Amino acid sequence: MTDAIDADLAGRQIRVGLDVGGTKIDAVAVSRSGEILARLRRPTGWGEDAVIVSILDTVDALSDEGGFDRSDIESVGVGIPGLVDAESGRVLHAVNLGVESLDLAGLVGGRLGTPVRVENDVKAAALGAAVLRGIVGSMAYLNLGTGVAAGIVVDGTIWRGSRGTAGEVGHLSVDPNGRLCGCGQRGCIETFCGGGALARAWGRPGALPVRDILDAADAGDERAGELRTDLFHGAAAAVRALVLSADVERVIIGGGLTSLGDRLIVGVRSALAAEAAASPFMRSLHLDDRIELLPAGSPAAAFGAAIVGATTPSKEIVSHG
Amino acid sequence: MTDAIDADLAGRQIRVGLDVGGTKIDAVAVSRSGEILARLRRPTGWGEDAVIVSILDTVDALSDEGGFDRSDIESVGVGIPGLVDAESGRVLHAVNLGVESLDLAGLVGGRLGTPVRVENDVKAAALGAAVLRGIVGSMAYLNLGTGVAAGIVVDGTIWRGSRGTAGEVGHLSVDPNGRLCGCGQRGCIETFCGGGALARAWGRPGALPVRDILDAADAGDERAGELRTDLFHGAAAAVRALVLSADVERVIIGGGLTSLGDRLIVGVRSALAAEAAASPFMRSLHLDDRIELLPAGSPAAAFGAAIVGATTPSKEIVSHG
Repeated sequence: MTDAIDADLAGRQIRVGLDVGGTKIDAVAVSRSGEILARLRRPTGWGEDAVIVSILDTVDALSDEGGFDRSDIESVGVGIPGLVDAESGRVLHAVNLGVESLDLAGLVGGRLGTPVRVENDVKAAALGAAVLRGIVGSMAYLNLGTGVAAGIVVDGTIWRGSRGTAGEVGHLSVDPNGRLCGCGQRGCIETFCGGGALARAWGRPGALPVRDILDAADAGDERAGELRTDLFHGAAAAVRALVLSADVERVIIGGGLTSLGDRLIVGVRSALAAEAAASPFMRSLHLDDRIELLPAGSPAAAFGAAIVGATTPSKEIVSHG
Repeated sequence: MTDAIDADLAGRQIRVGLDVGGTKIDAVAVSRSGEILARLRRPTGWGEDAVIVSILDTVDALSDEGGFDRSDIESVGVGIPGLVDAESGRVLHAVNLGVESLDLAGLVGGRLGTPVRVENDVKAAALGAAVLRGIVGSMAYLNLGTGVAAGIVVDGTIWRGSRGTAGEVGHLSVDPNGRLCGCGQRGCIETFCGGGALARAWGRPGALPVRDILDAADAGDERAGELRTDLFHGAAAAVRALVLSADVERVIIGGGLTSLGDRLIVGVRSALAAEAAASPFMRSLHLDDRIELLPAGSPAAAFGAAIVGATTPSKEIVSHG
């Protein structure tokens, strides 16, 4: 990078964060002091070219919304599902987006003239949730959506692990006789509390199957009651797995199922308390006090992506551009 | 601390590590370059006073064995079961030793005139195993003994976690209909692969019940065959829990059950491979290649304690002595 470009970037003030989901992109513009200046959502394209185009369109729309120029953008961070090589900014196997292998940082960075850093969406959301909730020390972000996965943040840094499976507690089996999981195992935590697995087990049409399950359970439906128990039991098992392995201080629950609101957190707390009732050891961990719910619609994932983007060493633009 | 004491400590060369177990203390004297100069084992006393006396006796015996004076000892590290406050060097609830609350660092340090640091025995063993096996990056040390617990080491540092439960995978339940655990839960990993739980389930007298179980299984005993399956399945579940939460690169299996040698590691590898057969995701993790067995009789725990001791800031002796 030349000194001229360095000087150019030095005058820029806006950090953009994008959470690229299967159907929509959530985007924020963040000031250097961490204030969210603008936010919007745009649909996600399907396939490698369309993902790039929809990201670029979203950045343009965000600059219109926030009243800044593309040339004011200091950095861009992208959270995206799938396997991410955070070093190179390449995305692999993002099946929900039709992406097999994509040099996302290179292509977007080259078009924007801005450093771009890419991170797995759950890990980015974990970082965003930790900062937004003011967590010092260790925490896990447990994403209850179609699938189940967690990200771990320690002292403000994403816990990366060795091969990208840190926080993949969704695929720990907790019942050898449980439902078959999409991953091929039986009784994975995700088969208990993943929105996709619960919708399949429920088997009735509906826009929000897990809400339908809770409503039917409240109305006395026996099968719905069993699935409600599974949901709370599975989320409680995920919390225990995170605390009894990485020993995080807090677990923040996010993801699509947070639209259930208090019904979710109250249910998970009750499951943790009930399952600890027989165990002085588990009671001593006070897990029901150590969980909280991220408000539905929280910008944590996009905000975390903006933080990821801002930590890019500026010289990385050379290898990407 | 006065300059005189600093100067005195500066000339010392010997780092002592002690692994205090329920029946014996394993002790090593280590040079500054990490060479084990002397090693011996002595019986452990029961109760708080006796634990202190047996530690001091062991240090004396070790200095005789290694041909050095107490005044050559630069630091002492102690690994001990129970809840350890690594900051203060106090040990709580070491029930196997008859210790309820003991200022171990203060009492031993005061008697020896040497900085003493105390660590949970499994965490100390994890550090020792990581260094002895030359592990760079992340690893877990899975201790299969009477109970089951793990320690995690990342980049040469013990992963401490928030409340001392990092690596406590022994008390993750993997079967809601499993055996009752001493902790009060059902189907904990420890009920499958803990030596104590297996001995109780086997219910026949013998010096080495888990070896008896494997021998009887080999001879065709059906009940022994089930317990053998439990052993390998439980250890495999512990490996999965460690990799799918903390994402450690390697898992080193240690503890009393390593006296089973190849029968143990071959069995755990087979269980990992069999349980991954139906799951492309699990197969992609190559867990069977990522485990290894610590040789029976390895000095890892005492050696790790010596490393713990050597990382004590020298001024700590003032508050302890």
